[in-house]
Amino acid sequence: MAEPMRQMHLNCFMFGLGHHEAAWRYKGVDPTQLSDIRYYHRLAQMAERAKFDSIFFADGLAGGKGYVNFFEPLTLMSSLAGVTKHIGLIGTVSTTYTEPYNLARYFASLDHISKGRVGWNIVTTGHAAAALNFNRDAHMEHTERYERAGEFLDVTTALWDSWEDGALVYDKAAGVMTDAARIREINHVGKWFKVKGPLTIPRVPQGHPVLVQAGSSEDGRAFAAKYAEVIYTMQTEIGEARQFYQDMQTRLVAAGRSPGQLKILPGIAVIIGETEEEAKEKEWRLNELSSLQNGLRRLSTLLGRDMSQYPLDGPLPELPDASEVNNQQTIYKVYVDLARRENLTIRQLIHRTAAGRGDLTVVGTPLQIADQLEKWFVTRACDGFNIMPPYFPGGLEDFIQHVIPELQRRGLFRTEYTGSTLREHLGLPRPVNRFAAVSSN
Amino acid sequence: MAEPMRQMHLNCFMFGLGHHEAAWRYKGVDPTQLSDIRYYHRLAQMAERAKFDSIFFADGLAGGKGYVNFFEPLTLMSSLAGVTKHIGLIGTVSTTYTEPYNLARYFASLDHISKGRVGWNIVTTGHAAAALNFNRDAHMEHTERYERAGEFLDVTTALWDSWEDGALVYDKAAGVMTDAARIREINHVGKWFKVKGPLTIPRVPQGHPVLVQAGSSEDGRAFAAKYAEVIYTMQTEIGEARQFYQDMQTRLVAAGRSPGQLKILPGIAVIIGETEEEAKEKEWRLNELSSLQNGLRRLSTLLGRDMSQYPLDGPLPELPDASEVNNQQTIYKVYVDLARRENLTIRQLIHRTAAGRGDLTVVGTPLQIADQLEKWFVTRACDGFNIMPPYFPGGLEDFIQHVIPELQRRGLFRTEYTGSTLREHLGLPRPVNRFAAVSSN
Repeated sequence: MAEPMRQMHLNCFMFGLGHHEAAWRYKGVDPTQLSDIRYYHRLAQMAERAKFDSIFFADGLAGGKGYVNFFEPLTLMSSLAGVTKHIGLIGTVSTTYTEPYNLARYFASLDHISKGRVGWNIVTTGHAAAALNFNRDAHMEHTERYERAGEFLDVTTALWDSWEDGALVYDKAAGVMTDAARIREINHVGKWFKVKGPLTIPRVPQGHPVLVQAGSSEDGRAFAAKYAEVIYTMQTEIGEARQFYQDMQTRLVAAGRSPGQLKILPGIAVIIGETEEEAKEKEWRLNELSSLQNGLRRLSTLLGRDMSQYPLDGPLPELPDASEVNNQQTIYKVYVDLARRENLTIRQLIHRTAAGRGDLTVVGTPLQIADQLEKWFVTRACDGFNIMPPYFPGGLEDFIQHVIPELQRRGLFRTEYTGSTLREHLGLPRPVNRFAAVSSN
Repeated sequence: MAEPMRQMHLNCFMFGLGHHEAAWRYKGVDPTQLSDIRYYHRLAQMAERAKFDSIFFADGLAGGKGYVNFFEPLTLMSSLAGVTKHIGLIGTVSTTYTEPYNLARYFASLDHISKGRVGWNIVTTGHAAAALNFNRDAHMEHTERYERAGEFLDVTTALWDSWEDGALVYDKAAGVMTDAARIREINHVGKWFKVKGPLTIPRVPQGHPVLVQAGSSEDGRAFAAKYAEVIYTMQTEIGEARQFYQDMQTRLVAAGRSPGQLKILPGIAVIIGETEEEAKEKEWRLNELSSLQNGLRRLSTLLGRDMSQYPLDGPLPELPDASEVNNQQTIYKVYVDLARRENLTIRQLIHRTAAGRGDLTVVGTPLQIADQLEKWFVTRACDGFNIMPPYFPGGLEDFIQHVIPELQRRGLFRTEYTGSTLREHLGLPRPVNRFAAVSSN
């Protein structure tokens, strides 16, 4: 085995005070720090010391009475770039409710600010509530959203190529600042967008920001095969995960790309104890702090039906097939399949998803967790994980102090950063500039 | 005179390598640092040490072959918030090419990140080139743009009020995170926008970010009287400036606001020398480095006509009245008036506007410059200035080392920050929450 060992990629999914819905009530968790940017600074620095590939911030475009989030991902990532040096910064922005010229500028600016450490989690925004904040009475159909997203990506990636590397010459003596032949209009005209270009911002350190995607519906997979470099998946069963992994490799090759160009990272909620009993007790205590009302609301939103009308200790009612819903298809399917497979009551389903919202939840000792991560990784169910601590900072500290060293001992995770950009951490190539390639003929 | 002396407000207008169009070629200026965020960090810290109220970043939504700008204002301000503690951070964002729900979130997040130091320079984007990057074949009419901007402000300010102060209760024992009665939908339905709300982000330290505006056309003045808290003006003649100042006070009162709620800051390009001769030589050297071709292009874009077809050493051709143009009316009028008033040739107009692009340019010793600032300030031509150094960092250093101490000796400018938010620096009140006021009846 002269070949260096394949290593897993670890992303830390930051999420308010923690992924468990009762995190804010957990002992030692101080909810008032949610409004303090230094709280996020400390978490990012903690993840960087542990050598995570990246940290990730989700987003929502509708405020509810219970949803509290002081920071928006673009501005948050820029702030975090200033207090970290290596770790990648990934944030969600919607293709349905932004303009490609704006988005291309935000991420180009962030890639310059962070010197090549930024990634964009591309979402099409499946919540109907968001539509009502953006001039619409209902949200766009699933297929239409993905169609728009595809064209959106064609435009933004072309804009990122509109300046070639080396377009800035700064010849003070001759008075020539730029090489005009290396700056191009893109003249995009499509169904959704008409964008002339060029961008206002020169080519970024990574060529393009790293492109991340999360939907695993049919539309989502087709989109990912064409554009994504990282997929966050929601897989609760290793067999399905391997099938998905294999399916994506096949699709990737069919799309003319090579297998190394896509990293698949399932979300995994980890609840860690010194003993299995301690871990289970932690989970129980968190679930005890959960409000049943919140859980019912979460389930009702997700399944598109008021669940409070059914018996709490009975099974899920008859529900339409995932392909027929216009909401977030992936998570819908995970919930329904999980409940059917394990014969869960509504109450049990609420508890089973309180820590991970549909992502795999692993409760156990550091060794048990490391074993499970290794098994998924070495059997090609994934390329790494999107780690979801139940509460911050304690739940993340547990993972860093007890699980990461074990993964490192097994040679499964880096002990030092070897590159300086997010692409380098992930082993992804820097995209070739489509226009430069043409003009070199 | 027991009353404390009225003091001027100083904003530092950051602009690439400097406001003079040949700044990048000037001796000692290193153009390659434009791509390095630390260059902006150092400038912001320098301005903060000098006790400026704020720094300001303009923006453009169309890239040209000569326009180089690595950083976009929202992401840039967030980065700068992390390396400063007191200074205000103001950035331009367009109401024509963004959605109010997005913009409200960006600025709310920035106000939390900076702990109350952010301001929004509201522009309607008068460049036709921008339209071509945003799905349009031509840009919106002047009046229509301002109409949209007004409704945009109604929506964003309502969203910033959608969370009351104190809406977060964090009662861990009772399991109650928010006081739902203090979080409200805004249910805006208008000609341009339909936005339900509430915002995803709780009320910000400043209540609303400080609202800044720059157009001085009839539409612009009406808009400013209703919404603006700071106006950046382009005034080259003290009499006109006083008239404008008086006009705005009258309009402000007519709009039901009090005179202290609006600060007027004319832009002023300063070229400083130990002697008047040295200052003039500096200006001459900068103009020598300017490209006549760039100057002609700038003039042609601004006046909406190709100026290379007219004799360089002849006068401006006949041109339509400012009110008839759909481009940026304010700057158009300043250029035409300046040329007519001083009988300038096209070449002379290019040189006279090379340092300030239409803003007042003052060339002289620190005492001469302090005298002029004092005269404008004490005779109520303004409330302070938007300082435009010809090149960075040297031109800013000159102002900080030689002009600011003189203003401080005269008691015209602060020697220490006394507040912690931008509103406090400017002496602006924190806006009352419209919904809280209603519900307290």
